[in-house]
Amino acid sequence: MGMTMTQKILAAHAGVDHVEVGQLIRANLDMVLANDITGPVAINEFEKAEFDHVFDKSKVSLVMDHFTPNKDIKSAEQCKQCRTFAKRFDLDNFYDVGNMGIEHALLPEKGLVAAGDAIIGADSHTCTYGALGAFSTGVGSTDLAAGMATGQAWFKIPSALKFELKGSLPENVSGKDVILHIIGMIGVDGALYKSMEFTGEGVKSLSMDDRLCITNMAIEAGAKNGIFPVDEITEEYMKGRVNRPWKKYEADADAVYDEVYTIDLSALKPTVSFPHLPENTKTIDEVGDIPIQQVVIGSCTNGRLSDMRIAAEILKGRHIHPDVRGIIIPATQEIYKDCIKLGYLDIFIDAGCVVSTPTCGPCLGGHMGILAAGERCVATTNRNFVGRMGHVDSEVYLASPAVAAASAIAGKISGPKGGR
Amino acid sequence: MGMTMTQKILAAHAGVDHVEVGQLIRANLDMVLANDITGPVAINEFEKAEFDHVFDKSKVSLVMDHFTPNKDIKSAEQCKQCRTFAKRFDLDNFYDVGNMGIEHALLPEKGLVAAGDAIIGADSHTCTYGALGAFSTGVGSTDLAAGMATGQAWFKIPSALKFELKGSLPENVSGKDVILHIIGMIGVDGALYKSMEFTGEGVKSLSMDDRLCITNMAIEAGAKNGIFPVDEITEEYMKGRVNRPWKKYEADADAVYDEVYTIDLSALKPTVSFPHLPENTKTIDEVGDIPIQQVVIGSCTNGRLSDMRIAAEILKGRHIHPDVRGIIIPATQEIYKDCIKLGYLDIFIDAGCVVSTPTCGPCLGGHMGILAAGERCVATTNRNFVGRMGHVDSEVYLASPAVAAASAIAGKISGPKGGR
Repeated sequence: MGMTMTQKILAAHAGVDHVEVGQLIRANLDMVLANDITGPVAINEFEKAEFDHVFDKSKVSLVMDHFTPNKDIKSAEQCKQCRTFAKRFDLDNFYDVGNMGIEHALLPEKGLVAAGDAIIGADSHTCTYGALGAFSTGVGSTDLAAGMATGQAWFKIPSALKFELKGSLPENVSGKDVILHIIGMIGVDGALYKSMEFTGEGVKSLSMDDRLCITNMAIEAGAKNGIFPVDEITEEYMKGRVNRPWKKYEADADAVYDEVYTIDLSALKPTVSFPHLPENTKTIDEVGDIPIQQVVIGSCTNGRLSDMRIAAEILKGRHIHPDVRGIIIPATQEIYKDCIKLGYLDIFIDAGCVVSTPTCGPCLGGHMGILAAGERCVATTNRNFVGRMGHVDSEVYLASPAVAAASAIAGKISGPKGGR
Repeated sequence: MGMTMTQKILAAHAGVDHVEVGQLIRANLDMVLANDITGPVAINEFEKAEFDHVFDKSKVSLVMDHFTPNKDIKSAEQCKQCRTFAKRFDLDNFYDVGNMGIEHALLPEKGLVAAGDAIIGADSHTCTYGALGAFSTGVGSTDLAAGMATGQAWFKIPSALKFELKGSLPENVSGKDVILHIIGMIGVDGALYKSMEFTGEGVKSLSMDDRLCITNMAIEAGAKNGIFPVDEITEEYMKGRVNRPWKKYEADADAVYDEVYTIDLSALKPTVSFPHLPENTKTIDEVGDIPIQQVVIGSCTNGRLSDMRIAAEILKGRHIHPDVRGIIIPATQEIYKDCIKLGYLDIFIDAGCVVSTPTCGPCLGGHMGILAAGERCVATTNRNFVGRMGHVDSEVYLASPAVAAASAIAGKISGPKGGR
């Protein structure tokens, strides 16, 4: 029986020719990632297990992105612990304040993840790197500790859902709308412990940023991972970034999928996930009249340069609604710099927004934009659970950068064309 | 007996010809200020007293600068309370995220404070506006509540210390070094409940940013207020900003001072206040070898454009030490924008620093750069009390932007010329 793309990557990393759904394998890892929240937990486990080395100092990444620049003493101590660990093992990829970005934007940008890789990260959105044709998934901090020391992790081979994409996206519709639409369709447990494999002729119309956004939210449907085939766009993206061999895996023609969904990209509309689950989607024409107090454009989901460009194009020469705080967070220092160069920062400031140095901050209720009771936020982030961005009586509406920018101007949830 | 500059302003605002030291007067106020920390306390008092109006909606300023963009639910609720109050009374000067800056940089920039004014603010560094030749001082939140409602406040007429400035500052020495030198000389209670009146031919060599920095820290010597005479530089600064009458007061020739200090500006050196009091000053040649982990350039003391320029000139084409987090916080959106335009933001980022949207943040241990145990920070802020920027076992060294920038490069406390 044929294997899916994910299964083929996992088989190769386990050194076997074939795997079956449900089989337990031990896979060699190409990258092991933690951040300033999960890193310290993993380091504690690492020390408890009395490990005295990391398997490869070029394959362990620590990114200080969640509560940095440090929001309190606890987060300062956590970063200090990671810094000490990184020094102890002379890690090549320790990213600290001033040299960092949101992990899932940073690692692809720096060429640290590549097609065909097997990657674990102590962060649920580690599934992002599937956009490059890698197997990539979030793990707990104990698995991460073992991964840092041994370079290996156990996996149960997942079954898969196939998403056959056709056509191309209309104007003002982007990867975020694709994944919100899919989650709305299959639900937050619709892909539980399965791979979401995106395929079909529609793939070629999706930019790398669109793909990164889509795989980023695979976990929001419960998936083990999300993955795109490797094509010219993938290769173009990796060129000049990835300085090591990478490999292209393709699903077998006779691979078996639990379900096959066909998505006509050209039929999608701007989509918004209402509180308090990503599956509570409505298309923009169904949202009604919902005043908002805050907009956040950023995160590992939508803080990349194309997201900034979309926001800048909509905000240019306009001013956000006086009742709205507009918070824009380029995901990495590189993107931040590009935003300066391209004039986006000027546009954002002139529009009445603030621009933060890269941080996950508001997405997880960390800092830099926490909500009070009764406040509503349109955010390009990935989760809108109860209290996710602050008070339990606040509300987060997930949307694309286009919808977020248009909503900031209108003071209520709005589509990118009816922004004024 | 003649009156000091401060006494003359207070007499005029009390509607009397003459005041004596120790006399209690009730003065009319030109501006009443609170922020997101003190505002809610004042508003609670305001409501407890059942006030139902503010005395003048153009003369009450609320600036959301301390913990914004909100760092947690509590700070979000505090801003919400201020926002509601500002709407209720239709305040002209409510500054929220995206439209704000650090209060003591913002109010002068916006022309909301002017020569001859009497100003209270529920923030100890309200003394900053003395740079413009105003009487300006910090008060508690109850006084502030009464001030918002009545437009008046009680004061005990202070005696004064006279600082006779002569000469002009050497290269790389700025207002911060002047005030640190003075506090080192007279101590943190050296001016307790007194006015610090700066005068002499040296005044004309000090820029408005230097003066704002000097008066900002008058409170760090325990002073009731700090004040500069009004000269061409003051008038030039107010031109195009202040759209109402202002008045120039001068001390009487026979005014009495408790002490007169003569400061030769040309003899000053870059000065650093060691933990844990601003009076623990050493000149840069006395500091020894002190490795640091963080540098903060910003705050109401040194977050103005000239501070950014000094930092940019030193950081240009260089990179900060790998063990140092460099955090740069332009004090207002206007300054932030100017930093983009002048290329400073590029310089900062290329040097490995992060640039934050305006906030008081790290200065008071709020957010955006809190220290862990054992960490040392060179900061252009105004206080280095135990635990001020984080853990009780962290240390803050107060210095000018030049020293801070040079120290960031060197990885230890360093003067602006030995930075490499």
